[in-house]
Amino acid sequence: MSERRVGADSPIDRLVPVFRPESIAVVGASETPGSLGTMAYGNLKRDFTGRRYPVNARRATVQGDRAFRDVTELPESVDLVLVLVPAADVPDVLERCVESGHRSAYVLGAGFSETGTDVGRDLQARATALAQKFGLPVVGPNCNGFLNGYQPVVGGFSLAPDETRPRVGSVALVSQSGGFGSYILNRAVATDVRVGFFASTGNESDVCVADVLRYAVEQPQVKVVGMFAETIRKPQVFLAAAERALELDKVIISVTPGSSETVARAALSHTASIVGSGEVYDAVCQQYGILRARSIDELIDFALVLQDGRRMAGRRVGVVTSSGGAGVLVAGNAAGAGLEIPELDRRAQQDIGALLPTFASAKNPIDTTAALGSMPPGTYGEIVSRLISNDQVDAILALTWYGEGPDADSLADIYRAFAKPLVPVPTLHPEALLERGLPAFADPTRAVGALAVLADVSGRPRAGIVATPVRAERAARARRILAASADKPFLLESSAKQLLALYGIPVARETACADENSAVKAALAMSGRVALKVQSYDLPHKSDAGGLALSLETEHDIRAAYRKITATAGAGHVVENVLVQEMVTSRLELALGLQRDPVFGPVVAVGLGGVLIEILGPPVLLHVPFSADRALAAIATICDGRITHEVRGLGETQQFQLADALLGLAALAVELPEVVSVDVNPLMVTATGMKAVDGLVIAGHARTPTEEG
Amino acid sequence: MSERRVGADSPIDRLVPVFRPESIAVVGASETPGSLGTMAYGNLKRDFTGRRYPVNARRATVQGDRAFRDVTELPESVDLVLVLVPAADVPDVLERCVESGHRSAYVLGAGFSETGTDVGRDLQARATALAQKFGLPVVGPNCNGFLNGYQPVVGGFSLAPDETRPRVGSVALVSQSGGFGSYILNRAVATDVRVGFFASTGNESDVCVADVLRYAVEQPQVKVVGMFAETIRKPQVFLAAAERALELDKVIISVTPGSSETVARAALSHTASIVGSGEVYDAVCQQYGILRARSIDELIDFALVLQDGRRMAGRRVGVVTSSGGAGVLVAGNAAGAGLEIPELDRRAQQDIGALLPTFASAKNPIDTTAALGSMPPGTYGEIVSRLISNDQVDAILALTWYGEGPDADSLADIYRAFAKPLVPVPTLHPEALLERGLPAFADPTRAVGALAVLADVSGRPRAGIVATPVRAERAARARRILAASADKPFLLESSAKQLLALYGIPVARETACADENSAVKAALAMSGRVALKVQSYDLPHKSDAGGLALSLETEHDIRAAYRKITATAGAGHVVENVLVQEMVTSRLELALGLQRDPVFGPVVAVGLGGVLIEILGPPVLLHVPFSADRALAAIATICDGRITHEVRGLGETQQFQLADALLGLAALAVELPEVVSVDVNPLMVTATGMKAVDGLVIAGHARTPTEEG
Repeated sequence: MSERRVGADSPIDRLVPVFRPESIAVVGASETPGSLGTMAYGNLKRDFTGRRYPVNARRATVQGDRAFRDVTELPESVDLVLVLVPAADVPDVLERCVESGHRSAYVLGAGFSETGTDVGRDLQARATALAQKFGLPVVGPNCNGFLNGYQPVVGGFSLAPDETRPRVGSVALVSQSGGFGSYILNRAVATDVRVGFFASTGNESDVCVADVLRYAVEQPQVKVVGMFAETIRKPQVFLAAAERALELDKVIISVTPGSSETVARAALSHTASIVGSGEVYDAVCQQYGILRARSIDELIDFALVLQDGRRMAGRRVGVVTSSGGAGVLVAGNAAGAGLEIPELDRRAQQDIGALLPTFASAKNPIDTTAALGSMPPGTYGEIVSRLISNDQVDAILALTWYGEGPDADSLADIYRAFAKPLVPVPTLHPEALLERGLPAFADPTRAVGALAVLADVSGRPRAGIVATPVRAERAARARRILAASADKPFLLESSAKQLLALYGIPVARETACADENSAVKAALAMSGRVALKVQSYDLPHKSDAGGLALSLETEHDIRAAYRKITATAGAGHVVENVLVQEMVTSRLELALGLQRDPVFGPVVAVGLGGVLIEILGPPVLLHVPFSADRALAAIATICDGRITHEVRGLGETQQFQLADALLGLAALAVELPEVVSVDVNPLMVTATGMKAVDGLVIAGHARTPTEEG
Repeated sequence: MSERRVGADSPIDRLVPVFRPESIAVVGASETPGSLGTMAYGNLKRDFTGRRYPVNARRATVQGDRAFRDVTELPESVDLVLVLVPAADVPDVLERCVESGHRSAYVLGAGFSETGTDVGRDLQARATALAQKFGLPVVGPNCNGFLNGYQPVVGGFSLAPDETRPRVGSVALVSQSGGFGSYILNRAVATDVRVGFFASTGNESDVCVADVLRYAVEQPQVKVVGMFAETIRKPQVFLAAAERALELDKVIISVTPGSSETVARAALSHTASIVGSGEVYDAVCQQYGILRARSIDELIDFALVLQDGRRMAGRRVGVVTSSGGAGVLVAGNAAGAGLEIPELDRRAQQDIGALLPTFASAKNPIDTTAALGSMPPGTYGEIVSRLISNDQVDAILALTWYGEGPDADSLADIYRAFAKPLVPVPTLHPEALLERGLPAFADPTRAVGALAVLADVSGRPRAGIVATPVRAERAARARRILAASADKPFLLESSAKQLLALYGIPVARETACADENSAVKAALAMSGRVALKVQSYDLPHKSDAGGLALSLETEHDIRAAYRKITATAGAGHVVENVLVQEMVTSRLELALGLQRDPVFGPVVAVGLGGVLIEILGPPVLLHVPFSADRALAAIATICDGRITHEVRGLGETQQFQLADALLGLAALAVELPEVVSVDVNPLMVTATGMKAVDGLVIAGHARTPTEEG
């Protein structure tokens, strides 16, 4: 084998030469004013204290440094080669990087697959092939580089050499789009978010956003990672990064384009509409504690309250305001965001009230009224100090109006004196507080939103994701059921229910009967009314085909129904048999589903069911694997939480039963990768429990679990 | 009668002396540095060109002007007296204002009902009594005054004399809270929203936010009114202002504290939970085209795109961007906000594409790529011009990155050359564009949100609110039905259905039967199965009391059921009779309701019904009166629009039937003010129409329509 493998073993170590380089070559380094090569090399000259090499075949020196004709002529194997040559030359440069033992490359220029041309796509494919063949870490093409403030180094042109560097802090930013990433970076700088790391990944011929996310989460200085991605190319890496962030109590914030309205619908599966990629990404983020920012403003807001790493012990907020009106607005916003503004106890009210005029309120919100302007200096600070040290609140929101309140330094002193989150809202000019590292906001509503997010993060379960155990013996029994329908488009209902029962989903009592007499016998053996259902591989939706008779009691009725449904549904279709099933009366109908998302894999859905499922609104999704606690939490959000209505909804025992059913579907998804989808609708909630009365299971070829991965 | 009436006749003319004064006295005018009296008089000195009079008993001159000892000693009856004296002196000052024939008063100081003290409440009650007795318009107390930039005059201390005045434009701001209002005003100034009018109303002893809203809407210079109110004291004035704004195509933006979660529930009425004041205010705003801003940022954003009065002909947006990533984010946001970004036709693509590099996209979003930096000057402007003049789009969103794109002047030229909305998003530094009057945004997501609001406003029905016609003959018949249950807590179901039928709500066929034999006779006369229902004034919820038997077919079953339900439900209760009703099979169950909101009066509700109503989510509310079109629009939003699902939901004919039923309830609400509430649940949707199978009507004393307001 003449192929040399470059780069280190672990996916994180692999990126160390890229993002923490000790030596960098810039191919295309230049002096032409305004050119990207000039900017990229100028950035190294400004910040980078490691060894740097300009590569330029037409110049002896670049920006005062001795230039090299080619990457093959450098005096050492460098950690990183920044590639700023025309697209057509890039594959050759990468090949020579491998030859010379350079350890990674960042391809900055455009002209690849983003052009939509064959030439561009071909060039990128060649770069990808080289990266894969030699294990060379390649970032880009079509991006603008990275910034590592901890080293420091600006590799590329995400900032110009003469531009202000961000104050280095705990925030990392990762963006697929270079231009957009730069914009986020600049906005972060302008609002004093402390950014320590930034990288753009462009067309992602090799290294993708998920890889860099994984890298960033592991950096000890990083507490918050903002990401912008149009596609998640490596979902497993993405999930691993998310899980690791949870473990380390770091926060990922995803700025994500809104879900597409055009959701892929499986043709056969009648509740397929309940799983679509946008919704699955929502569910994944929810489950892995990833925040979603709908705008750059929100990203900035969230980063501001998260960058100091403080957490709230609960959701109780103490509010100080000099405007009653603002207090009302904040209280309304807080209630909407699930925060509490608890009334302080009498003692605390006296303690704080002693500082206030008699007509001011110390209940919470603490309303100093406009009299604040005439209070002794330091009063506001003393109010905030007394409130923040009171264990009846978990965070403080301190509103001051323009021209009022304490100076920035004294508020900063209080901020540093306590570990509890303190969000000042100086409304007009937050700059002085932001400069001092306080999470200050101009807009009270945005401050409340950010505090609610901090409370969410503080309350995230940190246990990590529980893998679903695989039981080989059960899988083997399940495969015997599946085998009976091999080469069929779906399982007969009776087989589907056997499969469901095997995975702990309760099903109605039933018997598949080959003829009328055995149907009558089976029916009469059941106490109460029965349903008859024609089973045919031609009829996934038997009721539409007249293959269903409900609520039968007498032998006469059963015989008549048997003949009718076999005649109607049997016209032109092969009837396998007739299912005799107990009638189940229900006060509430649910639906369960299992789908496989093309990106994230198996997803379990639960929501209201019955014939109105298309009207009743979207189900709650759970990405597999998930814990019992997570399942219970998801159940509690069905119909915006109304499902737990004490009279009409699910009692505690039934919530546990439903969680078990969901975990059963998750186990099925993992043990039987060949099952494409499962739909259980309705799952009838009865007085004593729940029973599935219909189920549709579609199985494909028997994929091995590794294909799933 | 010795009482002199002051002030003019119409509610708008009444406020002219306050907000467009030609002469102003300031009681409490001062020279003490920093005092409110100094600020208020200083403001007059700075801006006001009318006649001004300082009133101060202890000084011969104030700020160089001759001072007067008292309002009774002024050389003329002034339009407006600004009152800045201690609360205890205010009633006397007001009385002397009336005596001297002054035409209005603005009471700025605190110390009234907001203190929560008896003294404060008493002082305010005296001010209110004086205002009412003499018709003297009194604004305040406990506020900071007003600004009329069209005159100009700053009356009070919402801005200090040395503070920058807003650039005068088409935006008016009205706030109950003075401090909060000032903050909004300052934020508007900081973001270059052009404010022409501002007023704070404080404790609203006489003049309230709705009055000032009504005034502001009528001002010819005003196009947009932002309002902040904790309470709507005069709902009819508020609605009149809203209706007038619709007529004049002006826009009211309400910054409203979030709805309280504690919704008043009527004890007896089983769907009472569907109407609560917060939700009613939402419905009113929706119906009257009032925008809701969740934050001051949103208020500013909306005002920015609305202040030039431009409208969109549709919801199609043309986007120009130099970052593909930003284009994706914008497209996602736009889809979420119901905006379209249509692909341009081939001709337009060629027209615009001719200006772009080959690898750039002219489809829409038009992505110049980062190559924009190297294009000839003027290219970006030319792209925007060609796009804005194309009738395939109704508005333009023009994103430029920091340092790129056209200078502010050339973009301003394009803006002025076209009447179509153009929103530039220069991302980092919108200031230069804002100064030139363009609605520029830093955040692309917020720009999209504002454009969506502009599209909503542009698409508002302008027809005004249609009054519900009153039919006296029908009302008389209805009152005969109501009379049968006078002094009872509710109407028997059979009476309720008669009443509903009278107002066009289809009901099930039924007969009230006094004994078993007539019940059997009535049942057998109906084809198909029947239900038996015990009717008793003791049992509003008969099914819970065992007073209900369903799906009966044979005489035997009917007799057995009759005996059982009368025995069970009759135990301890007076049974009036037994209702025999046809069984109605339904594929969809709806619920209708009528409630009377304590603020806004009658509200009609419609949503999914049946036994799961508490789980199925909130209904859609309609404030009475409403038009048939509005009813249809509301129906189309049930379950987020899924109710119109072609297979499971309501077809077009049924939507019309349902709209008629809602209009019927509205007519009932207006004709029968004594009806407190109506609940129809379920309203069964059948193959051919719909039928109410249960109804609960609660009537109070026969109020006259005038009491209804």
